[in-house]
Amino acid sequence: MSAARRDAEGVDLAKYLAECRAMVLDEIRAMVPQGSRASRVLYDLMLDYPMRDAKGLRPALCVAACRALGGPLEGALPSAAVLELYHNAFLIHDDVEDRSEKRRDALTLQRLHGVPIAVNVGDAMLALALQPLLDNMHRLDMGRALRILETVAVMARESAEGQAVELDWVRHARWDLTDDDYLAMVDQKTGWYSFIAPMRIGAIVAGASAEVLAALHDFAVALGAAFQIQDDVLNLQGREADYGKEIAGDLWEGKHTLILLHALRSMDAAERERALEILDRPRPDTVDPARDDLAGRLRRIVPALAEEGHLDATARQRLDALLADVTRTKTRDDVEWLLSQIDRHDSLNYAREVARARASAAGAMLSSWSWMKPSVHRAVLQSLVDYVVERER
Amino acid sequence: MSAARRDAEGVDLAKYLAECRAMVLDEIRAMVPQGSRASRVLYDLMLDYPMRDAKGLRPALCVAACRALGGPLEGALPSAAVLELYHNAFLIHDDVEDRSEKRRDALTLQRLHGVPIAVNVGDAMLALALQPLLDNMHRLDMGRALRILETVAVMARESAEGQAVELDWVRHARWDLTDDDYLAMVDQKTGWYSFIAPMRIGAIVAGASAEVLAALHDFAVALGAAFQIQDDVLNLQGREADYGKEIAGDLWEGKHTLILLHALRSMDAAERERALEILDRPRPDTVDPARDDLAGRLRRIVPALAEEGHLDATARQRLDALLADVTRTKTRDDVEWLLSQIDRHDSLNYAREVARARASAAGAMLSSWSWMKPSVHRAVLQSLVDYVVERER
Repeated sequence: MSAARRDAEGVDLAKYLAECRAMVLDEIRAMVPQGSRASRVLYDLMLDYPMRDAKGLRPALCVAACRALGGPLEGALPSAAVLELYHNAFLIHDDVEDRSEKRRDALTLQRLHGVPIAVNVGDAMLALALQPLLDNMHRLDMGRALRILETVAVMARESAEGQAVELDWVRHARWDLTDDDYLAMVDQKTGWYSFIAPMRIGAIVAGASAEVLAALHDFAVALGAAFQIQDDVLNLQGREADYGKEIAGDLWEGKHTLILLHALRSMDAAERERALEILDRPRPDTVDPARDDLAGRLRRIVPALAEEGHLDATARQRLDALLADVTRTKTRDDVEWLLSQIDRHDSLNYAREVARARASAAGAMLSSWSWMKPSVHRAVLQSLVDYVVERER
Repeated sequence: MSAARRDAEGVDLAKYLAECRAMVLDEIRAMVPQGSRASRVLYDLMLDYPMRDAKGLRPALCVAACRALGGPLEGALPSAAVLELYHNAFLIHDDVEDRSEKRRDALTLQRLHGVPIAVNVGDAMLALALQPLLDNMHRLDMGRALRILETVAVMARESAEGQAVELDWVRHARWDLTDDDYLAMVDQKTGWYSFIAPMRIGAIVAGASAEVLAALHDFAVALGAAFQIQDDVLNLQGREADYGKEIAGDLWEGKHTLILLHALRSMDAAERERALEILDRPRPDTVDPARDDLAGRLRRIVPALAEEGHLDATARQRLDALLADVTRTKTRDDVEWLLSQIDRHDSLNYAREVARARASAAGAMLSSWSWMKPSVHRAVLQSLVDYVVERER
């Protein structure tokens, strides 16, 4: 048994995650204004995503990094709560941007309340996240509070940049990408706010040196990449009930993943052409039932009118063409075909290998940290190394 | 001539606004990362709205309040730039939420690049706004920097609350509202970030006392209400080229205004029922160019086919009925009818009167401020009292 494995022995990761999450939810509830006239129309909606069943990975990373370096729990909790607010605000805006249907086993906020309200709830969460960071000035010292604020500023910028890169790929149907392109995007889009910032902030609370912050940064980058790749794998392999999102939602959305990039590279020219044609089509729009109804009713009324002699061949042809053109969305067969290609080229295993290599690199770094004393918190970080690639949801 | 009038004499408001705006745009350009790999996909888009022709009211209010109280220009500029970033981020998200077509004489960001990119550009602007506020710690002193940050936190929260209240009214077709309901919403949604926060932040830079801050607050609330009501008036009276937005865009969007509330109150029961039925219908969807607008295209193709004799009266009638039934959007006739009601009940003049009363109250407050020495900056504040209700765009 390796030293790394021994570290993680005896640690109940699920319990640690659940405890951190419970404490951070208490913090979040305390941050949300009570008895405001905006409670029903804003703050109740703001609590929806955070209260849904979730892993609570970011708060746990923040707390574990802080405590593994000898920092106090209560110093880290408000900032951990802020990270969770940012995370959920990003999820809400992501779900709008990706037109996602489900999030954590329930409908997305935009499906429940519409795009306008969802966008505003996300904005309100970002607004609310500011005050606890200012309160850090009194809770911690000025220097630490400022460094945490600066980390949050960088984090928000990195996330938006990563998101911008991915949205540009989607908008211009860019698929001529390398694994490194993908990993650089993921590092910015999710790595920063999910791994780098939580660990960095926890370490700042503990008063860590620049060298320690740099070491944690590299560890977090490797762990974050492994986590995101595994997320992509789960999206394509998972059953809906376990995973909490749609099955193969990434394919319906045409999301860029290491898996799909690998499959595209492995296809022959004709297959690749077909795949790109499918990926270029939008997903069927299930957001606006009134709209789908129009296409459906038109599809029934046009043949009937033609049969009764109310329109001629030209009208029939142009209306049919309009319908075919307008409804050029992905079909279930398309998605099944993409899945079969991914299967044939063993692209899930390819991605799993890359994820394992990253996690293993993170594990090696952690093993070398002689400056971090053994503790349950260090053991939690160690067990996360296995967890990110072994988790099933 | 009143003392207030004399104050404003000789001040070239347009020049003052233009100068403040030019300085703040320089600040904003300096804040946006150069040579980033996200430049093309993010930062260029971020500069689009700020660079479009605009009044630059918020920067001018911040600078004028600061300098009228003896504060230094260079201390206020970065915060004024942050306010302009927030303003433009809110505009981008508002345009998404209201499905607006035009902004400042050009297409909205969401019409140009789609909802996903527009939402993310707004988020990125909010992220970028944080760093200059942190740099205030070194530029000003810690106490002022913190109070400015706290003002921004409150401002962002008030805006989101006001927006939530309005979106709730829209979603549930709430029209049983008083003028006070409207004014309270406007105070939160636009008053805070457009008037209250700019003046407060300028005054904090100048080291103003709590009493001065409170006096400025009341002045800003009155001025902000007058400004927003005039904005609503201009939306309904203006010609598109002058105003920079759509003509009667507020009616297409079913936006709550003092004007419409007054007209609804003045209608008889049958008229009110018709008005509410119209307002309850969505505007025709022209929002997402990527998403093919079946209804819109059908609305163009059906008359063309009829004209060319490809379909008969029965087909035309059934297709029109299908469109009317399924899409149930507002028509130009609907909007014209609402405008005629507003005209008949003199609701524009009613709103103008309310705006003038608020502006006049603000003017009276300013006249009583013996603690603010005469200066070009005080004169600018004075001339804004007239400007907010007399402006034509």
